[in-house]
Amino acid sequence: MTIDLNGIHSPSDIKGMDIDTLRLLSEELRAVLIKKLASHGGHVGPNLGVVEATVALHYVFDAPKDQIVFDVSHQSYVHKMLTGRIGAFTDPAHYDDVTGYTCPRESPEYDLFEVGHTSTSISLATGLAKARDLRGGDGNVVAFIGDASLGGGMALEALDYAPELGSNIIIIVNDNQMSIAENHGELYSHLAHLRATAGKSDNNIFKALGYEYIYVAEGNDLRALIRAYRQAKDSPRAVLIHINTMKGSGLPVAEKEKEQFHYHSPFDPATGAPLSADRDDSYQDIFAKLMLELMHEDGSVALLNAGTPGAIGMTAPRREAAGRQMVDVGIAEQDCVTMAAGMARGGARAVMGVVATFLQRAYDQLSHDVAINNLPVTIVDFYGGIFAMNDMTHLGFFDVAMVSNIPGILFLSPATVEEYESMIRWSVAEKPGPVVIRTPGGAPVHSDRPVLMPFTRYDVVREGSEVAIIGEGALLQNALKAADILRESGVEATVINPRVLSQVDTECLDSLRGYRHVITVEDGIVDGGFGQKVAAYLGGASCKVTCLGLKKEFLDRYSVKDVLEANSLTPEAIATIALA
Amino acid sequence: MTIDLNGIHSPSDIKGMDIDTLRLLSEELRAVLIKKLASHGGHVGPNLGVVEATVALHYVFDAPKDQIVFDVSHQSYVHKMLTGRIGAFTDPAHYDDVTGYTCPRESPEYDLFEVGHTSTSISLATGLAKARDLRGGDGNVVAFIGDASLGGGMALEALDYAPELGSNIIIIVNDNQMSIAENHGELYSHLAHLRATAGKSDNNIFKALGYEYIYVAEGNDLRALIRAYRQAKDSPRAVLIHINTMKGSGLPVAEKEKEQFHYHSPFDPATGAPLSADRDDSYQDIFAKLMLELMHEDGSVALLNAGTPGAIGMTAPRREAAGRQMVDVGIAEQDCVTMAAGMARGGARAVMGVVATFLQRAYDQLSHDVAINNLPVTIVDFYGGIFAMNDMTHLGFFDVAMVSNIPGILFLSPATVEEYESMIRWSVAEKPGPVVIRTPGGAPVHSDRPVLMPFTRYDVVREGSEVAIIGEGALLQNALKAADILRESGVEATVINPRVLSQVDTECLDSLRGYRHVITVEDGIVDGGFGQKVAAYLGGASCKVTCLGLKKEFLDRYSVKDVLEANSLTPEAIATIALA
Repeated sequence: MTIDLNGIHSPSDIKGMDIDTLRLLSEELRAVLIKKLASHGGHVGPNLGVVEATVALHYVFDAPKDQIVFDVSHQSYVHKMLTGRIGAFTDPAHYDDVTGYTCPRESPEYDLFEVGHTSTSISLATGLAKARDLRGGDGNVVAFIGDASLGGGMALEALDYAPELGSNIIIIVNDNQMSIAENHGELYSHLAHLRATAGKSDNNIFKALGYEYIYVAEGNDLRALIRAYRQAKDSPRAVLIHINTMKGSGLPVAEKEKEQFHYHSPFDPATGAPLSADRDDSYQDIFAKLMLELMHEDGSVALLNAGTPGAIGMTAPRREAAGRQMVDVGIAEQDCVTMAAGMARGGARAVMGVVATFLQRAYDQLSHDVAINNLPVTIVDFYGGIFAMNDMTHLGFFDVAMVSNIPGILFLSPATVEEYESMIRWSVAEKPGPVVIRTPGGAPVHSDRPVLMPFTRYDVVREGSEVAIIGEGALLQNALKAADILRESGVEATVINPRVLSQVDTECLDSLRGYRHVITVEDGIVDGGFGQKVAAYLGGASCKVTCLGLKKEFLDRYSVKDVLEANSLTPEAIATIALA
Repeated sequence: MTIDLNGIHSPSDIKGMDIDTLRLLSEELRAVLIKKLASHGGHVGPNLGVVEATVALHYVFDAPKDQIVFDVSHQSYVHKMLTGRIGAFTDPAHYDDVTGYTCPRESPEYDLFEVGHTSTSISLATGLAKARDLRGGDGNVVAFIGDASLGGGMALEALDYAPELGSNIIIIVNDNQMSIAENHGELYSHLAHLRATAGKSDNNIFKALGYEYIYVAEGNDLRALIRAYRQAKDSPRAVLIHINTMKGSGLPVAEKEKEQFHYHSPFDPATGAPLSADRDDSYQDIFAKLMLELMHEDGSVALLNAGTPGAIGMTAPRREAAGRQMVDVGIAEQDCVTMAAGMARGGARAVMGVVATFLQRAYDQLSHDVAINNLPVTIVDFYGGIFAMNDMTHLGFFDVAMVSNIPGILFLSPATVEEYESMIRWSVAEKPGPVVIRTPGGAPVHSDRPVLMPFTRYDVVREGSEVAIIGEGALLQNALKAADILRESGVEATVINPRVLSQVDTECLDSLRGYRHVITVEDGIVDGGFGQKVAAYLGGASCKVTCLGLKKEFLDRYSVKDVLEANSLTPEAIATIALA
């Protein structure tokens, strides 16, 4: 017997199935999933781990009347398969029809929110539940959240608040005993304790917070899941279902190498070998190697991270080499930034490596704990700018606008490997105060040009007249190429690598007042960026100022080429504007 | 017997005291405290509640070798009295020598951090502890945190992480059963359960997270406190001491009216009556009355807040009138913003009232949950701009730079009561998407000028030529006065109320291209503000552009007059610049 997966258009198509058919369905969904993941890449472990949990969810609950919110929603592939988007999994030609996260643009009925950051699902669910209650509606509200995401502060805030609603809300904790890497924080010891006691321990954090608590030891067993979900369904109060699942379930390489297969590019499903070779070098490698060197030299140097060590080049062997000088606080960016502040105050040298889009979660900590206290914390920001992750929920081009307008933080944007390393070394050695260093986008660019000090001076890398192009970070290369084009038109442009984006080099800018045209080229949005600071500073000068950069908007799965063209950031477009 | 309080210069001066002397000391400290609080104002309840807890702290622990971090640090007055700053409490002439929070500028030895926001102390303490361990030092690290602050997400993140340090860290939970207003969230039910069982319950969230747990039933009893602190001192692991204290202890009016006496302006200590009358009207009142009206008209309108209902005009009687349409999630700004997003998605009409400096704690939630999802959430921002709280940790003039550069959020800054009310009504009724409305600073300004629609258009309130002054929010008045001064010099200035700060009115700005000088006047920092957007837009025009506003810096306890003068924001300074 086989099931016609392409005949599943909505959850109602699985409602009449018996348990054996549901099991077969799960097997077939898993097989299709493995095939797509292997050839297309994606979140392997999280999705394979919840095949049964998701089938049971749509079997027991009645979406869209019952509202389901997936935390991070990187584990929502099976949900998509069961809610009208099966073709995007069975047909390779349609693989890209769906995003990797829940997406109301794809399915306004079944996907309630664009989600990509962790720990938001319980808050969203409390909002849905409160709206339901105020409007006099009914139906269940379900938040589906992983054990690692549960340790994020806002999940804990909402976990604390949800029972106070005094109304139906169901939280499913998908306990797969992993974060992206290993779990951190003591909540996980407690979850282990609950698993070890089959959920029967008297000491139970969820019961302490007022939840009805249901434990499912076999979180990949459909019958057990269905029983638990049915028990919770239509409860008039807050219920928490703790399900013990296996990340990567059904794909041996993913079950074994859980960290590598959290997210994976295309791979051979038999061996797990990647289909394309990794780059020989990357800024992640450069950073991690440099940090290991700095930590080796000085035992008071520590590298902090909030649950994404791989994204900053700290592979498991490197973490081991760093030993106690590596601190991973789990998915807890606020705690991480402020812990770094505490370490700096205590005389250690704190460097935090963080993905730009997640640094957004610690704005107040940057301002209130690091900057007001003027503490020498170095934050190295990864995947900032245009040449980074392109999912709408993971964009990297807002970091300059966010960070560089906080008083007291020096925001540096190096253009080359040499500047990057030099800035990190300087910041750790000199402890000048709070510094955020943005890792350049794209492939590493080397230069034998001496690194100009101090970093608060703009570096004039090419002397010209009339026209000046100030290009930061990875876009310095486009500024230089634009100058080449301009030379062909007989214009010798000055090209400047500004390096510092949180303040202007007034001396350098004053030298441009007699120019005809000053153009800023920004690897980020124009609003709130360094270009507007330049424009404001030169507001009284006779030169024309043009600020180039991205429009202030959320893009989704863009091509870099298109974005550069649409925003006049190609060498050709910059040159054309310079001549206007 | 009396104690010479002015003879206490450091904690070593109380080390030799016996228990009776310590009690006497506490009584005298409390009396001095009440006298200062009554005549000077300050955080009444929090400080009176911890007199004994602080005396015992400095009696048992050895600061500065032992490092103490106070959460929020609004309860650190007794700590200041015992660490060399007694004169700022005993001598009215020196009352203003100390800030209301811990302050390393006052005492680098004993005050480790500038603090003013909640929930940061455990993270800071883990940082200090980690630095101590990496540097091979010793000494205890103590975080002193209130029950309400413990519900903030970052405190929970750090509570989760701290035991993983595997090293000395002591967390004192000061359980006074109150937030500023009543407590929310189920953690408080759990604390009540622990109190009810004298800390003996098997279900104990702190034990679940791996802490050694010590309960002190009489948190205002010195002997009990000293015993508990001694038990914890020098522990090689994480200890949590749960002390049950009485907010406002020793001042009957403060014990009774806990919310009113959390913070109070000068008052009669016998009756609790304020020494100066409250204003007849305030934007808080205007807002709260309007919200009650809107909630009464439509049962799906809800007002959300994160632990500061008084700051948005929602007094206890008004909260009662709002009933279930008022949602206070406790000190959990992230949860609050994202819950509002969930409510909006669920078809309710969510309005959140928030203090500007605390909105900083929910940057990612504004961006990721509200803006990316384009949900019709209305956020009314209080105490923004220059005319607001002036403690370094509570500044309101960074909100425009923070919020207005997030894509998709309409940031509105009304200049009058009529615009303010109109914007709130419009946002709730029309649900245009995410809107942040900044409550104007200073006293309410009324105007009978019709409110111009749409709000994305700049309102030209005075027609002139040559010079244009674009003045936002409360500073529109200064722009108008500057125009009066200019008239005396024969210059008729155009004055514009921009209202929208997250985008420019291109049509209006295009009409200014032929002007000699365009001046933006901003109730906030220039960096990242609306003025720089104007300057960038007009970068190609022949007119001169000057952006006025605050420098990007952290001020402390400033006078508004001084700040306006120092930043050329007075009518006279604006007029002088216009003529330059």
